[in-house]
Amino acid sequence: MTTPPVRPRDLGFLLHDWLKLDSLLAYPHFQEHSRETVDAMLDIAGRVAADTFLTHYKAADQYQHEPHLVEGQVRILPAIHQALAAFAEIGMFAAPFDAEFGGLQLPQLVYSAAMAQFMAANVATSAYPMLTAGNAKLLVRYANEALVKACALPEIEGRYFGTMCLSEPQAGSSLADIATRAVPDGSDDLGARYRLFGNKMWISGGDQDASANIIHLVLAKVPGPDGKLVAGTQGISLFVVPKVLVEGSEYAGQRNDVVVAGLNHKMGYRGTANCLLNFGEGARHRPGGEAGAVGYRVGGVGQGLPIMFLMMNEARLSVGLGAAMLGYRGYRLAVDYARDRRQGRPLAARGGAPVAIIDHPDVRRLLLAQKAYAEGALALVLYCARLVDEELHGPVEGRGEAASLLGLLTPIAKTWPSEWGLAANDLAIQVHGGYGYTRDFDVEQLYRDNRLNPIHEGTTGIQGLDLMGRKTLRDDGASLAILRHRINATLDRARDLPALADFAHVLDVTWARIGALVAHLKAAGDDAASLAQATPFLSAFGHAVMAWLWLDQAVVASSLPDGGLPDGGDAEEAAFRAGKLAACRFFFETEVPRVDVWLGIVGRRSDLTQTFDPAGF
Amino acid sequence: MTTPPVRPRDLGFLLHDWLKLDSLLAYPHFQEHSRETVDAMLDIAGRVAADTFLTHYKAADQYQHEPHLVEGQVRILPAIHQALAAFAEIGMFAAPFDAEFGGLQLPQLVYSAAMAQFMAANVATSAYPMLTAGNAKLLVRYANEALVKACALPEIEGRYFGTMCLSEPQAGSSLADIATRAVPDGSDDLGARYRLFGNKMWISGGDQDASANIIHLVLAKVPGPDGKLVAGTQGISLFVVPKVLVEGSEYAGQRNDVVVAGLNHKMGYRGTANCLLNFGEGARHRPGGEAGAVGYRVGGVGQGLPIMFLMMNEARLSVGLGAAMLGYRGYRLAVDYARDRRQGRPLAARGGAPVAIIDHPDVRRLLLAQKAYAEGALALVLYCARLVDEELHGPVEGRGEAASLLGLLTPIAKTWPSEWGLAANDLAIQVHGGYGYTRDFDVEQLYRDNRLNPIHEGTTGIQGLDLMGRKTLRDDGASLAILRHRINATLDRARDLPALADFAHVLDVTWARIGALVAHLKAAGDDAASLAQATPFLSAFGHAVMAWLWLDQAVVASSLPDGGLPDGGDAEEAAFRAGKLAACRFFFETEVPRVDVWLGIVGRRSDLTQTFDPAGF
Repeated sequence: MTTPPVRPRDLGFLLHDWLKLDSLLAYPHFQEHSRETVDAMLDIAGRVAADTFLTHYKAADQYQHEPHLVEGQVRILPAIHQALAAFAEIGMFAAPFDAEFGGLQLPQLVYSAAMAQFMAANVATSAYPMLTAGNAKLLVRYANEALVKACALPEIEGRYFGTMCLSEPQAGSSLADIATRAVPDGSDDLGARYRLFGNKMWISGGDQDASANIIHLVLAKVPGPDGKLVAGTQGISLFVVPKVLVEGSEYAGQRNDVVVAGLNHKMGYRGTANCLLNFGEGARHRPGGEAGAVGYRVGGVGQGLPIMFLMMNEARLSVGLGAAMLGYRGYRLAVDYARDRRQGRPLAARGGAPVAIIDHPDVRRLLLAQKAYAEGALALVLYCARLVDEELHGPVEGRGEAASLLGLLTPIAKTWPSEWGLAANDLAIQVHGGYGYTRDFDVEQLYRDNRLNPIHEGTTGIQGLDLMGRKTLRDDGASLAILRHRINATLDRARDLPALADFAHVLDVTWARIGALVAHLKAAGDDAASLAQATPFLSAFGHAVMAWLWLDQAVVASSLPDGGLPDGGDAEEAAFRAGKLAACRFFFETEVPRVDVWLGIVGRRSDLTQTFDPAGF
Repeated sequence: MTTPPVRPRDLGFLLHDWLKLDSLLAYPHFQEHSRETVDAMLDIAGRVAADTFLTHYKAADQYQHEPHLVEGQVRILPAIHQALAAFAEIGMFAAPFDAEFGGLQLPQLVYSAAMAQFMAANVATSAYPMLTAGNAKLLVRYANEALVKACALPEIEGRYFGTMCLSEPQAGSSLADIATRAVPDGSDDLGARYRLFGNKMWISGGDQDASANIIHLVLAKVPGPDGKLVAGTQGISLFVVPKVLVEGSEYAGQRNDVVVAGLNHKMGYRGTANCLLNFGEGARHRPGGEAGAVGYRVGGVGQGLPIMFLMMNEARLSVGLGAAMLGYRGYRLAVDYARDRRQGRPLAARGGAPVAIIDHPDVRRLLLAQKAYAEGALALVLYCARLVDEELHGPVEGRGEAASLLGLLTPIAKTWPSEWGLAANDLAIQVHGGYGYTRDFDVEQLYRDNRLNPIHEGTTGIQGLDLMGRKTLRDDGASLAILRHRINATLDRARDLPALADFAHVLDVTWARIGALVAHLKAAGDDAASLAQATPFLSAFGHAVMAWLWLDQAVVASSLPDGGLPDGGDAEEAAFRAGKLAACRFFFETEVPRVDVWLGIVGRRSDLTQTFDPAGF
């Protein structure tokens, strides 16, 4: 029997016991689904992930199997093709889409839980469908009917894959400076047509040979009447640029003027082809006999960035999910290793036989930390996935609240799993000792893979600026109030549970401090001085959110009924719940105290980084 | 002109201004040396490191250049041979040895500063001479004259290389459980002879084709009269086992019964061949026609471990030095990148041209942290190197104090650079953004290389147990008192400097807390409960030591005379000193607050890791 990459009880606890999936399934939008159809989907996702994604995890990392160029075309490992075909076969590409587009209309929460298994098995291969889903979602929401039919529907079937083309070699985090030009070129059945000229860097899935076509979503600037590009982000528009022009285009069937200028050779995530793409070189491919990549505008001129943020925000949650699952898989491997490996003995048993290293307190510390980081990160991202469902399909009166809270939590859901999932992978290596440093064990690859996550889709520094600037200092405080309200609901329940009452008090005090700090920063003015502390603010906020989520999970684990429980006998279930309580306790004992350190740093607003003359470096 | 891997002013400040090398050179043992000979050695070491070690740093990491087996013999990249020949040529193998053994009789402090440059350039290639020096030092101290002549002298010339063979596949950190047998086999001109049978794992330089011979130092157990091995570490003896038997052996010139059973394929440090060695297989090589690796005992039966600790303690300092230099090189690369790369603009300058990213406060934060970690780690290890000189060659009345303090600081000097040098490399990648995640830039390799350092020569967990157990709870407090005495001397000077007086107060309070905590733990008893917190204790202690060293450096940087300064004009020197003060301030503002968190964790002695049933993982 296939062992799924994520323990079913881990997902079941989060979805059913904690996030009350049943109440989501009661929304009219999800009426075709039931707990049974959901569990069946999760079950088959786990099996396909184990049988097709996990099986090439190591192979796709190997030097000789990295994506490579053959006559201008990127080739990726055939096992990746096969895995993605299996992924399409079980309907995973279609899972999150509405039935009108051929989708299964599953809740985002369920889709995310299914994706969690693929990401745990193979995060690099999962990047292709992850980007494809985000791409198609943007199209079905903002593109015209012809583009949806020609581009999005084949993505939902899993025949075409999608990309997002934002960064340029000279402008990674700074989209205001992108220089790709989009010159008007009339129109055809697909809408307003342009010719694009420019270079796009770090394009995951920018080319590959696994899908019949590739739909690029490209940010570019339309020149003004003077031929110049508008400075800043307000000049950015969004274009659909298929690799091969699609039905409805005047140039349908022709190869577009998009070429791979190079492949990035990365520390990890090697199965994901990451490309430098040139648009409009005019050398190799000239649709209609002319240079310029043919693209179709989505949304108004200059409105590209807000539209792109739909995909970017989804990608940020996906990065968080992937990072969580890398941490999760390392944790499970470390637990297994620590149970098997016998070495040393406790202080009290000198002279006895060596014990399993899981019996050493310091190894348990390493494992508890991983559990708190990895399972906590997964809980956070799934919580956000539920907010997506609440925002789009929940009772109308709650949608604004869900959207507001989701906006506040997105930088946390991107960053916290990335930073602490990586920390978990570091500890998984440590549990393995020297073996963990060799390529014979997966933990070193998990660590290398996860190192990408604090970088792409907005670095940790960028997320900090987003959280502190846009979501806090320039916000009216409504989203923070919503968060505080939900935290208070947890506190009310936790205070009645003797094992958790102390933690509830600590959490209450912590959030009171954050509230006071935010008020202090707003009153102090000089946002530049505050924003210089954006990263420690993000760290503090993230840990405080995680403390809340762990306390909330502990409340639920403490309050479950004793009988009729899924997955195994009573002893196993009792141990599972004890594990949740232990992770909560670990988090409050050893992680929450860090919050005050970060808050202190933010509150003091040292001018060191602003005033220091870099000649001293 | 060659740019040395370490800026001369960085070494000069530490050696001359801070650690007062002149006062070491006044010891009779070092009377042949002067500041001029020392600076000449450091200068040529920097050039050879840049010209021969740095030049193959990337190549030796590549898949196709990894150490590999050809007919039982490990082959390493020819560039490594050439680099080590150049290293021998300038006398670096001989540098730390006494003149009577053909050495240059340089202070350990100077040797370490020279090695720092090789390690910054190429840590994997530096591992060969690092192990060779430790090996030869043990021999000249403990082995008989014949062994010294036959084995150590060729190592000091750089013709033979050395290894240390401790770990076995089933016993990494737990030497009590080693199972390699050493059976008495008479004696010859090299002394008491044995035949060894067993497997040794993780042997760096265990085989290679760069040296004429390899001298293995092997821990093994001599069977008792009943044929059984003595349990525990007291059964361990130490043996010299040359790859090819040396002059004085009955089997001189014959290939010993030591074979490479496998090579470990590592995440980093790939230029260092890391082997599983089989001793006494009897299949391929049979010296004298019999199975068994021929070895010569050093020290008494059962006295192997304390003797081996001479080499192990030196190796621990070397690991700390290598980790510091990996962090250092990443820091310098990140500074260069941040000065060149233009992207984004500060809040106050929206609409202007993009600025160098070094002008963003968050990037400066990443750089200041790297500076504090990397330069701090280097300072710590060089401080310990000076203690080695004080212990061996200083005024007799101070030797005990130096030895005692060195013992206390060794676990810190091994661990702090490993943990925080790695953290620095993580931040160096972050400064580079997506580029830092590609193999086109060295920072990703530095990060992979440094991940080994918290593992080998005793994991961080093992170092914590050493610091808290042997060096604190089971110590009479004398070494801690010596440390506190030296800290007080720093405080006395810092209190008179207005910019540093506040930090002095914080440091005083921090060490008072540590003193109180140690007293509390000793009074509380139940060492197992305390030792369960050994790692956070090590973290707290390490940061508190580093805070002292940064304050001490800041005192010196503030107190240097204004005129007649080396290396560049006044502006450059002023910026250099301002950098030291900024790193000190950064450390006190953002790092020292962590100490209370760790001390709090230790003081509470939570029973979670001891009582938690691992079924809950």
